[in-house]
Amino acid sequence: MLCEYSLSAQREDFYNITPQVCEAVTKSGVTSGIAVIFCPHTTAGITINENADPDVVHDLLIGLNKAFPDRAEFRHGEGNSSAHLKASAMGSSATIIIENGKLLLGTWQGIYLWSSTRRGIGSFM
Amino acid sequence: MLCEYSLSAQREDFYNITPQVCEAVTKSGVTSGIAVIFCPHTTAGITINENADPDVVHDLLIGLNKAFPDRAEFRHGEGNSSAHLKASAMGSSATIIIENGKLLLGTWQGIYLWSSTRRGIGSFM
Amino acid sequence: MLCEYSLSAQREDFYNITPQVCEAVTKSGVTSGIAVIFCPHTTAGITINENADPDVVHDLLIGLNKAFPDRAEFRHGEGNSSAHLKASAMGSSATIIIENGKLLLGTWQGIYLWSSTRRGIGSFM
Repeated sequence: MLCEYSLSAQREDFYNITPQVCEAVTKSGVTSGIAVIFCPHTTAGITINENADPDVVHDLLIGLNKAFPDRAEFRHGEGNSSAHLKASAMGSSATIIIENGKLLLGTWQGIYLWSSTRRGIGSFM
Repeated sequence: MLCEYSLSAQREDFYNITPQVCEAVTKSGVTSGIAVIFCPHTTAGITINENADPDVVHDLLIGLNKAFPDRAEFRHGEGNSSAHLKASAMGSSATIIIENGKLLLGTWQGIYLWSSTRRGIGSFM
Repeated sequence: MLCEYSLSAQREDFYNITPQVCEAVTKSGVTSGIAVIFCPHTTAGITINENADPDVVHDLLIGLNKAFPDRAEFRHGEGNSSAHLKASAMGSSATIIIENGKLLLGTWQGIYLWSSTRRGIGSFM
Protein backbone atom coordinates (compact mmCIF):
# COMPACT_ATOMS: atom_id res chain seq x y z
CA MET A 1 0.00 0.00 0.00
CA LEU A 2 1.29 3.41 -0.96
CA CYS A 3 0.91 6.40 1.37
CA GLU A 4 2.11 9.87 0.47
CA TYR A 5 3.08 12.55 2.92
CA SER A 6 4.41 16.02 2.51
CA LEU A 7 5.79 18.48 4.97
CA SER A 8 6.87 22.05 4.58
CA ALA A 9 10.55 22.51 5.37
CA GLN A 10 11.41 26.11 6.13
CA ARG A 11 15.11 25.53 6.60
CA GLU A 12 17.76 22.80 6.37
CA ASP A 13 16.93 20.32 9.09
CA PHE A 14 16.20 16.71 10.02
CA TYR A 15 12.45 16.24 10.35
CA ASN A 16 11.28 13.27 12.45
CA ILE A 17 8.74 11.37 10.34
CA THR A 18 8.54 8.25 12.55
CA PRO A 19 4.91 8.93 13.59
CA GLN A 20 3.74 9.19 9.99
CA VAL A 21 5.53 5.97 9.02
CA CYS A 22 4.10 4.10 12.03
CA GLU A 23 0.63 5.35 11.12
CA ALA A 24 1.04 4.15 7.53
CA VAL A 25 2.19 0.70 8.68
CA THR A 26 -0.87 0.38 10.93
CA LYS A 27 -3.15 1.54 8.11
CA SER A 28 -1.60 -0.96 5.68
CA GLY A 29 -2.45 -3.92 7.89
CA VAL A 30 0.91 -5.53 7.02
CA THR A 31 1.99 -7.80 9.87
CA SER A 32 5.25 -9.13 8.44
CA GLY A 33 7.22 -7.50 5.63
CA ILE A 34 9.14 -4.34 4.90
CA ALA A 35 8.43 -0.63 4.77
CA VAL A 36 10.20 1.45 2.13
CA ILE A 37 10.31 5.18 2.82
CA PHE A 38 11.33 7.06 -0.32
CA CYS A 39 11.97 10.76 -0.85
CA PRO A 40 11.47 12.03 -4.43
CA HIS A 41 13.84 15.02 -4.13
CA THR A 42 17.52 15.38 -5.01
CA THR A 43 18.43 17.81 -2.25
CA ALA A 44 16.76 15.81 0.51
CA GLY A 45 17.03 12.28 1.84
CA ILE A 46 15.92 9.72 4.40
CA THR A 47 18.07 8.56 7.29
CA ILE A 48 17.68 6.76 10.60
CA ASN A 49 19.36 8.23 13.65
CA GLU A 50 18.90 9.07 17.31
CA ASN A 51 15.44 10.23 18.38
CA ALA A 52 16.22 11.17 21.98
CA ASP A 53 18.64 14.10 22.13
CA PRO A 54 17.91 16.89 19.59
CA ASP A 55 21.59 17.85 19.81
CA VAL A 56 22.38 14.80 17.66
CA VAL A 57 20.67 16.17 14.57
CA HIS A 58 22.15 19.60 15.33
CA ASP A 59 25.59 17.96 15.20
CA LEU A 60 24.69 15.96 12.07
CA LEU A 61 23.90 19.21 10.23
CA ILE A 62 27.27 20.68 11.19
CA GLY A 63 29.24 17.52 10.45
CA LEU A 64 27.65 17.02 7.03
CA ASN A 65 28.27 20.62 6.02
CA LYS A 66 31.91 20.31 7.07
CA ALA A 67 32.35 17.04 5.12
CA PHE A 68 30.52 18.31 2.02
CA PRO A 69 30.92 22.10 1.89
CA ASP A 70 30.33 24.35 -1.09
CA ARG A 71 33.48 24.57 -3.17
CA ALA A 72 34.87 27.09 -5.62
CA GLU A 73 35.32 24.36 -8.25
CA PHE A 74 31.61 23.54 -8.32
CA ARG A 75 29.86 24.37 -11.59
CA HIS A 76 26.16 23.72 -10.91
CA GLY A 77 24.39 27.03 -11.45
CA GLU A 78 21.88 26.66 -8.64
CA GLY A 79 24.75 26.73 -6.15
CA ASN A 80 23.42 23.83 -4.09
CA SER A 81 25.86 21.05 -4.99
CA SER A 82 26.65 20.67 -1.30
CA ALA A 83 23.01 19.65 -0.78
CA HIS A 84 23.20 17.19 -3.70
CA LEU A 85 26.28 15.61 -2.12
CA LYS A 86 24.58 15.26 1.25
CA ALA A 87 21.54 13.72 -0.50
CA SER A 88 23.71 10.99 -2.02
CA ALA A 89 25.50 10.41 1.29
CA MET A 90 22.21 10.07 3.23
CA GLY A 91 20.39 8.17 0.49
CA SER A 92 16.90 8.59 -0.94
CA SER A 93 15.25 5.83 1.05
CA ALA A 94 15.18 3.68 4.14
CA THR A 95 14.01 0.08 4.33
CA ILE A 96 12.73 -1.15 7.68
CA ILE A 97 11.54 -4.60 8.73
CA ILE A 98 7.91 -4.97 9.92
CA GLU A 99 7.10 -7.80 12.36
CA ASN A 100 3.85 -8.32 14.26
CA GLY A 101 2.53 -5.20 12.56
CA LYS A 102 5.26 -2.97 13.97
CA LEU A 103 8.45 -1.40 12.64
CA LEU A 104 11.50 -3.17 14.10
CA LEU A 105 13.28 0.03 15.04
CA GLY A 106 15.78 0.11 17.87
CA THR A 107 14.86 2.00 21.03
CA TRP A 108 16.85 5.09 20.05
CA GLN A 109 16.09 5.02 16.32
CA GLY A 110 13.89 7.58 14.62
CA ILE A 111 13.22 8.01 10.89
CA TYR A 112 14.25 11.41 9.57
CA LEU A 113 13.59 13.32 6.40
CA TRP A 114 16.66 15.48 5.90
CA SER A 115 15.75 18.43 3.72
CA SER A 116 18.04 21.21 2.56
CA THR A 117 15.36 23.85 2.04
CA ARG A 118 12.71 22.69 -0.35
CA ARG A 119 9.40 21.05 0.33
CA GLY A 120 9.79 17.34 1.05
CA ILE A 121 7.39 14.58 0.17
CA GLY A 122 7.84 11.21 1.76
CA SER A 123 6.43 8.45 -0.40
CA PHE A 124 5.94 5.24 1.48
CA MET A 125 4.80 1.75 0.61
CA MET B 1 12.23 -10.94 -12.06
CA LEU B 2 15.96 -10.51 -12.29
CA CYS B 3 17.54 -8.46 -15.09
CA GLU B 4 21.26 -8.01 -15.47
CA TYR B 5 22.97 -5.14 -17.18
CA SER B 6 26.57 -4.24 -17.67
CA LEU B 7 28.21 -1.13 -18.97
CA SER B 8 31.80 -0.34 -19.71
CA ALA B 9 33.10 2.49 -17.55
CA GLN B 10 36.21 4.08 -19.01
CA ARG B 11 36.74 6.54 -16.16
CA GLU B 12 35.35 7.51 -12.77
CA ASP B 13 31.89 8.88 -13.44
CA PHE B 14 28.18 8.73 -12.67
CA TYR B 15 26.41 6.76 -15.40
CA ASN B 16 22.67 7.36 -15.80
CA ILE B 17 20.99 3.93 -15.79
CA THR B 18 17.40 5.17 -15.44
CA PRO B 19 16.39 4.01 -18.96
CA GLN B 20 17.60 0.45 -18.29
CA VAL B 21 15.78 0.29 -14.95
CA CYS B 22 12.55 1.62 -16.52
CA GLU B 23 12.84 -0.95 -19.29
CA ALA B 24 13.29 -3.76 -16.74
CA VAL B 25 10.25 -2.62 -14.74
CA THR B 26 8.13 -2.64 -17.89
CA LYS B 27 9.45 -6.07 -18.86
CA SER B 28 8.70 -7.46 -15.38
CA GLY B 29 5.03 -6.55 -15.61
CA VAL B 30 5.06 -5.52 -11.93
CA THR B 31 2.37 -2.90 -11.34
CA SER B 32 2.84 -2.32 -7.61
CA GLY B 33 5.95 -3.21 -5.63
CA ILE B 34 9.60 -2.27 -5.40
CA ALA B 35 12.62 -2.29 -7.66
CA VAL B 36 16.00 -3.10 -6.14
CA ILE B 37 19.01 -1.99 -8.18
CA PHE B 38 22.16 -3.67 -6.90
CA CYS B 39 25.78 -3.24 -7.96
CA PRO B 40 28.07 -6.24 -7.31
CA HIS B 41 31.32 -4.22 -7.12
CA THR B 42 33.17 -2.75 -4.15
CA THR B 43 34.52 0.33 -5.91
CA ALA B 44 31.20 1.31 -7.47
CA GLY B 45 27.73 2.07 -6.14
CA ILE B 46 24.17 3.12 -6.92
CA THR B 47 22.79 6.55 -6.09
CA ILE B 48 19.84 8.73 -7.03
CA ASN B 49 20.51 12.34 -7.89
CA GLU B 50 19.70 15.14 -10.32
CA ASN B 51 19.16 14.14 -13.93
CA ALA B 52 18.86 17.61 -15.48
CA ASP B 53 22.14 19.52 -15.17
CA PRO B 54 25.26 17.42 -15.90
CA ASP B 55 27.22 19.85 -13.73
CA VAL B 56 25.65 18.20 -10.67
CA VAL B 57 27.46 14.89 -11.19
CA HIS B 58 30.61 16.82 -12.09
CA ASP B 59 30.38 18.49 -8.68
CA LEU B 60 29.54 15.21 -6.93
CA LEU B 61 32.78 13.70 -8.25
CA ILE B 62 34.80 16.63 -6.89
CA GLY B 63 32.99 16.76 -3.56
CA LEU B 64 33.34 13.01 -2.93
CA ASN B 65 37.04 13.05 -3.76
CA LYS B 66 37.57 15.96 -1.37
CA ALA B 67 35.63 14.22 1.44
CA PHE B 68 37.30 10.84 0.88
CA PRO B 69 40.77 11.46 -0.60
CA ASP B 70 43.65 9.03 -0.75
CA ARG B 71 45.67 9.21 2.45
CA ALA B 72 49.25 8.39 3.40
CA GLU B 73 48.02 6.17 6.27
CA PHE B 74 46.11 3.87 3.93
CA ARG B 75 47.50 0.33 3.73
CA HIS B 76 45.47 -1.37 0.97
CA GLY B 77 47.98 -2.38 -1.70
CA GLU B 78 45.75 -1.62 -4.69
CA GLY B 79 45.81 2.06 -3.72
CA ASN B 80 42.07 2.54 -4.25
CA SER B 81 40.81 2.86 -0.68
CA SER B 82 39.34 6.23 -1.61
CA ALA B 83 37.06 4.40 -4.07
CA HIS B 84 36.10 1.83 -1.39
CA LEU B 85 35.14 4.70 0.95
CA LYS B 86 33.01 6.36 -1.70
CA ALA B 87 31.35 2.99 -2.42
CA SER B 88 30.25 2.66 1.21
CA ALA B 89 29.09 6.29 1.31
CA MET B 90 26.99 5.88 -1.88
CA GLY B 91 25.76 2.39 -1.04
CA SER B 92 25.55 -0.74 -3.19
CA SER B 93 21.85 -0.47 -3.99
CA ALA B 94 18.80 1.70 -4.43
CA THR B 95 15.23 0.69 -3.64
CA ILE B 96 12.47 2.46 -5.54
CA ILE B 97 8.70 2.17 -5.24
CA ILE B 98 6.74 0.96 -8.32
CA GLU B 99 3.11 2.06 -8.67
CA ASN B 100 0.88 1.65 -11.72
CA GLY B 101 3.78 -0.09 -13.43
CA LYS B 102 6.07 2.95 -13.13
CA LEU B 103 8.98 3.93 -10.90
CA LEU B 104 7.88 6.65 -8.45
CA LEU B 105 10.89 8.84 -9.09
CA GLY B 106 10.70 12.58 -8.57
CA THR B 107 10.83 14.83 -11.63
CA TRP B 108 14.52 15.61 -11.18
CA GLN B 109 15.64 12.17 -10.01
CA GLY B 110 17.78 9.86 -12.11
CA ILE B 111 19.34 6.53 -11.08
CA TYR B 112 23.13 6.52 -11.35
CA LEU B 113 25.77 3.86 -11.31
CA TRP B 114 28.83 5.52 -9.85
CA SER B 115 31.92 3.64 -10.96
CA SER B 116 35.52 4.39 -10.05
CA THR B 117 37.12 2.76 -13.06
CA ARG B 118 36.11 -0.85 -13.39
CA ARG B 119 33.35 -2.44 -15.38
CA GLY B 120 30.02 -2.17 -13.63
CA ILE B 121 27.16 -4.63 -13.68
CA GLY B 122 23.80 -3.52 -12.45
CA SER B 123 21.77 -6.41 -11.15
CA PHE B 124 18.11 -5.63 -10.84
CA MET B 125 15.03 -7.42 -9.60
CA MET C 1 11.33 -14.94 7.90
CA LEU C 2 13.03 -12.91 10.57
CA CYS C 3 16.36 -13.97 12.04
CA GLU C 4 18.12 -12.05 14.77
CA TYR C 5 21.80 -12.06 15.44
CA SER C 6 23.95 -10.24 17.92
CA LEU C 7 27.67 -9.92 18.23
CA SER C 8 29.81 -8.31 20.85
CA ALA C 9 31.88 -5.45 19.46
CA GLN C 10 34.82 -4.60 21.68
CA ARG C 11 36.05 -1.70 19.59
CA GLU C 12 35.15 0.34 16.50
CA ASP C 13 35.46 -2.03 13.57
CA PHE C 14 33.82 -3.58 10.53
CA TYR C 15 32.57 -7.06 11.42
CA ASN C 16 32.02 -9.48 8.52
CA ILE C 17 28.50 -10.90 8.94
CA THR C 18 28.26 -12.55 5.51
CA PRO C 19 28.26 -16.11 6.93
CA GLN C 20 25.33 -15.33 9.25
CA VAL C 21 23.32 -13.74 6.43
CA CYS C 22 24.00 -16.69 4.08
CA GLU C 23 22.92 -19.08 6.83
CA ALA C 24 19.69 -17.14 7.35
CA VAL C 25 18.91 -17.16 3.62
CA THR C 26 19.39 -20.93 3.49
CA LYS C 27 17.21 -21.39 6.58
CA SER C 28 14.47 -19.21 5.10
CA GLY C 29 14.11 -21.41 2.03
CA VAL C 30 13.63 -18.29 -0.13
CA THR C 31 14.78 -19.03 -3.67
CA SER C 32 14.02 -15.71 -5.32
CA GLY C 33 13.53 -12.42 -3.48
CA ILE C 34 15.45 -10.00 -1.33
CA ALA C 35 17.27 -10.05 1.98
CA VAL C 36 17.11 -6.97 4.19
CA ILE C 37 19.82 -6.70 6.83
CA PHE C 38 18.92 -4.07 9.39
CA CYS C 39 20.88 -2.77 12.36
CA PRO C 40 18.78 -1.30 15.23
CA HIS C 41 21.52 1.00 16.58
CA THR C 42 22.28 4.65 15.89
CA THR C 43 26.06 4.44 16.21
CA ALA C 44 26.39 1.37 13.98
CA GLY C 45 25.43 0.52 10.42
CA ILE C 46 25.47 -2.03 7.62
CA THR C 47 27.66 -1.72 4.55
CA ILE C 48 28.95 -3.89 1.74
CA ASN C 49 32.62 -3.72 0.87
CA GLU C 50 35.69 -5.77 0.02
CA ASN C 51 36.02 -9.13 1.77
CA ALA C 52 39.51 -10.07 0.58
CA ASP C 53 42.13 -7.68 1.95
CA PRO C 54 41.61 -6.73 5.64
CA ASP C 55 43.54 -3.51 4.92
CA VAL C 56 40.43 -2.19 3.14
CA VAL C 57 38.35 -2.00 6.33
CA HIS C 58 41.41 -0.62 8.16
CA ASP C 59 41.48 2.19 5.61
CA LEU C 60 37.69 2.67 5.77
CA LEU C 61 37.94 3.31 9.52
CA ILE C 62 40.63 5.96 8.98
CA GLY C 63 38.89 7.60 6.04
CA LEU C 64 35.52 7.81 7.83
CA ASN C 65 37.08 9.31 10.94
CA LYS C 66 38.87 11.91 8.81
CA ALA C 67 35.66 12.81 6.94
CA PHE C 68 33.49 12.87 10.07
CA PRO C 69 35.73 13.80 13.02
CA ASP C 70 34.63 15.02 16.44
CA ARG C 71 34.22 18.79 16.35
CA ALA C 72 34.34 21.50 18.98
CA GLU C 73 30.93 22.81 17.83
CA PHE C 74 29.19 19.52 18.60
CA ARG C 75 26.66 19.70 21.45
CA HIS C 76 25.58 16.10 22.01
CA GLY C 77 26.52 15.25 25.60
CA GLU C 78 27.59 11.68 24.96
CA GLY C 79 30.42 12.96 22.78
CA ASN C 80 29.82 10.43 20.01
CA SER C 81 28.34 12.61 17.27
CA SER C 82 31.12 11.46 14.97
CA ALA C 83 29.71 7.92 15.29
CA HIS C 84 26.16 9.17 14.59
CA LEU C 85 27.44 10.86 11.41
CA LYS C 86 29.18 7.73 10.24
CA ALA C 87 26.00 5.73 10.96
CA SER C 88 23.99 7.98 8.64
CA ALA C 89 26.70 7.87 5.97
CA MET C 90 26.86 4.03 6.07
CA GLY C 91 23.12 3.52 6.46
CA SER C 92 21.17 1.24 8.80
CA SER C 93 20.51 -1.50 6.29
CA ALA C 94 21.52 -3.34 3.16
CA THR C 95 19.19 -4.92 0.63
CA ILE C 96 20.54 -7.81 -1.41
CA ILE C 97 18.94 -9.81 -4.21
CA ILE C 98 18.41 -13.56 -3.67
CA GLU C 99 18.31 -15.81 -6.74
CA ASN C 100 18.37 -19.61 -6.82
CA GLY C 101 18.48 -19.53 -3.02
CA LYS C 102 21.73 -17.56 -2.93
CA LEU C 103 22.70 -13.94 -2.27
CA LEU C 104 23.75 -12.25 -5.52
CA LEU C 105 26.89 -10.74 -4.04
CA GLY C 106 29.87 -9.94 -6.23
CA THR C 107 33.02 -12.01 -5.82
CA TRP C 108 34.73 -9.40 -3.65
CA GLN C 109 31.69 -8.26 -1.69
CA GLY C 110 31.18 -9.01 1.98
CA ILE C 111 28.43 -7.73 4.28
CA TYR C 112 29.76 -5.75 7.23
CA LEU C 113 28.30 -4.53 10.48
CA TRP C 114 30.19 -1.36 11.27
CA SER C 115 29.98 -0.70 14.99
CA SER C 116 31.49 2.21 16.88
CA THR C 117 31.73 0.53 20.28
CA ARG C 118 28.40 -0.75 21.43
CA ARG C 119 26.88 -4.17 21.08
CA GLY C 120 25.39 -4.69 17.65
CA ILE C 121 22.33 -6.70 16.74
CA GLY C 122 21.73 -7.53 13.12
CA SER C 123 18.06 -8.07 12.42
CA PHE C 124 17.44 -9.83 9.17
CA MET C 125 14.41 -10.87 7.17
